[in-house]
Amino acid sequence: MKTTIPTDVLSAAIAAVRAKSPLVHNITNYVVMNNSANALLAMGASPVMAHWVSEMEEMTAIAGALVLNIGTLDDKWIDGMLVAGKAALRRGIPVVLDPVGAGATSQRTQTALKIIDQCRPTIIRGNASEIMALVDASVKSKGVDSNASSDDAVGSAKQLASVTGAVVVISGDTDYITNGTDVYTVQGGSPMMTSVTGMGCTSTALVGAFAAVESNPMVAATAAMAVMSLAGERAVACSRGNGSLQMNFLDELYTLTPDTL
Amino acid sequence: MKTTIPTDVLSAAIAAVRAKSPLVHNITNYVVMNNSANALLAMGASPVMAHWVSEMEEMTAIAGALVLNIGTLDDKWIDGMLVAGKAALRRGIPVVLDPVGAGATSQRTQTALKIIDQCRPTIIRGNASEIMALVDASVKSKGVDSNASSDDAVGSAKQLASVTGAVVVISGDTDYITNGTDVYTVQGGSPMMTSVTGMGCTSTALVGAFAAVESNPMVAATAAMAVMSLAGERAVACSRGNGSLQMNFLDELYTLTPDTL
Amino acid sequence: MKTTIPTDVLSAAIAAVRAKSPLVHNITNYVVMNNSANALLAMGASPVMAHWVSEMEEMTAIAGALVLNIGTLDDKWIDGMLVAGKAALRRGIPVVLDPVGAGATSQRTQTALKIIDQCRPTIIRGNASEIMALVDASVKSKGVDSNASSDDAVGSAKQLASVTGAVVVISGDTDYITNGTDVYTVQGGSPMMTSVTGMGCTSTALVGAFAAVESNPMVAATAAMAVMSLAGERAVACSRGNGSLQMNFLDELYTLTPDTL
Repeated sequence: MKTTIPTDVLSAAIAAVRAKSPLVHNITNYVVMNNSANALLAMGASPVMAHWVSEMEEMTAIAGALVLNIGTLDDKWIDGMLVAGKAALRRGIPVVLDPVGAGATSQRTQTALKIIDQCRPTIIRGNASEIMALVDASVKSKGVDSNASSDDAVGSAKQLASVTGAVVVISGDTDYITNGTDVYTVQGGSPMMTSVTGMGCTSTALVGAFAAVESNPMVAATAAMAVMSLAGERAVACSRGNGSLQMNFLDELYTLTPDTL
Repeated sequence: MKTTIPTDVLSAAIAAVRAKSPLVHNITNYVVMNNSANALLAMGASPVMAHWVSEMEEMTAIAGALVLNIGTLDDKWIDGMLVAGKAALRRGIPVVLDPVGAGATSQRTQTALKIIDQCRPTIIRGNASEIMALVDASVKSKGVDSNASSDDAVGSAKQLASVTGAVVVISGDTDYITNGTDVYTVQGGSPMMTSVTGMGCTSTALVGAFAAVESNPMVAATAAMAVMSLAGERAVACSRGNGSLQMNFLDELYTLTPDTL
Repeated sequence: MKTTIPTDVLSAAIAAVRAKSPLVHNITNYVVMNNSANALLAMGASPVMAHWVSEMEEMTAIAGALVLNIGTLDDKWIDGMLVAGKAALRRGIPVVLDPVGAGATSQRTQTALKIIDQCRPTIIRGNASEIMALVDASVKSKGVDSNASSDDAVGSAKQLASVTGAVVVISGDTDYITNGTDVYTVQGGSPMMTSVTGMGCTSTALVGAFAAVESNPMVAATAAMAVMSLAGERAVACSRGNGSLQMNFLDELYTLTPDTL
């Protein structure tokens, strides 16, 4: 793993998550809930999954960060996301958006844009197709997988960051993290990670954990992607298929300490 | 594993899934979403899980197959299934139905029959009790588990195939695949596979992947059941309990190539 | 693992679950459905996950126990829980309640109290904060994690048991099981178990399996907690992180026999 942020900054961010154990409120998709919760626990954070509109104000109020993930949307969940997202905005709690499948259907693209408009996320993380679709409605995704390389989406990411004020993360062979001006990168990981469902969603959840303890969103997002990359390449080295990779990835996150960098 | 279709046909089907990586749209139950997605990825397909009625037309339109699984039903999900299923029917995209728990409650049996009536599935896969309950409403299931052997359901499967025009698959110690006239079989697997929740649902998801690339539904369904059986018996051989079996099964699917047959 | 119930009583309870394979109807949260189902299968029970209000009467009627878990609530699910819970009460089927996150939001506390009022659960299992919040609305939880030690909640548990007529279980370093008068304990397990999401929910599901075959709810609840503790400490001994722990825990449950005590 290689990244543009210094090792001591990365170590400090990891130490902060482990020390403060932030509560991360996730409104996320059914496919990844178990793994996202376990990844947050492995990192030292405290996850809660809750989407009921009636408890959104109260639940978001006690959280250190809010993660909104549109992977398995429907009307009621959008209602919950908007109430939670606006509560977080009002209270200054960082909101992290994962626009899963933007570009696959127009409903997803529009929902992601509505969340961006109403909840002003601090950080948006997607794959190349998803980020490009948020800037250009003619870009199509293959379901939840990307049709494009992350290298091709840097221009779109910078544009999206400039327009929205969010830090934008494109994950891929190289991860790019931009505020519209600066571009940080993370290199590493392994293509085999795409064979485990929801690894992108896991990275978004970890971005939430880091955003809860680190006030600079460029650093928070880069630290999360670096941790994903590092744990991923270590897990790939001892995995025979995507079943063991899913498990080993959690074990690598769990055993990762500021010192092991 | 022993099956009635020739090894080269089976190898070609596996190669086709890996080469074409079809998008499989799943409207499936909460229990198995993560494992079904990972099994599809392990096989080389591209899964998407989506159920929101507003995006069903658009999502199904880009898919190579649609899998409908009634494991954790409610009204909204039935609406989504019917819209997606009718869109697939209109566009000639194969629909695969898993009537989970038909025979456990009358609502489940009736919902499965309504989907069959309105969406005309290409392939229906269930356990013995479920298939029998779709033909004879007096047959009862023990929740989502079967009370009967697959051998006892062959007559019902042939009748269901004849009436509906679907290829019908009964999974069990021997898997039977029938179009109402011909009956193909797959033998192998292991009784220990029933200790992992949702292995039947996984097989239905794989049937979807094969149906997306293989126009003969008898071959598609048999290939999927053969792959399940083969990966299952290999995984059982190196598993200590149902936890490791769930993981090893994915690894075996992941490493399976046309040549390893 | 050390517990106040004799080993032969515990062995008999395990043997009864394995021999009778009770159907356990779960209305539980999205995060844990897969693991709860696999834990029930590992223990020898037959799980069904179903929440659709239209099939609740019929599904609960064929079950040996009903488990209600409020981890990822919304209105429709509450409707399903109340219909199922009242059907179980009418038919004398044991109801087990897991008040996940009571104390985190007032909606959760009130929903748990409504279920207690209308469905009269046989057994209530929670962590210390959750049990305390059901007795004193001023107690707060950190999301779904406890702020307090189980030792601090014994008084609240006894009070809750006396008022409701339920056996109350507090899980923690020491598990306490009380009917308001007697207090049984289970010691063992490992703090590492809290790094796997939904271990509490798994224990509630197992309480359901034991309650289905053992008419004394103090024995049923204690047996389930003893099994959790025993399988947990064995799994921790061979796990590197929370990924492998989640898997090894299922394997330990799967291989546990009345004799291995």
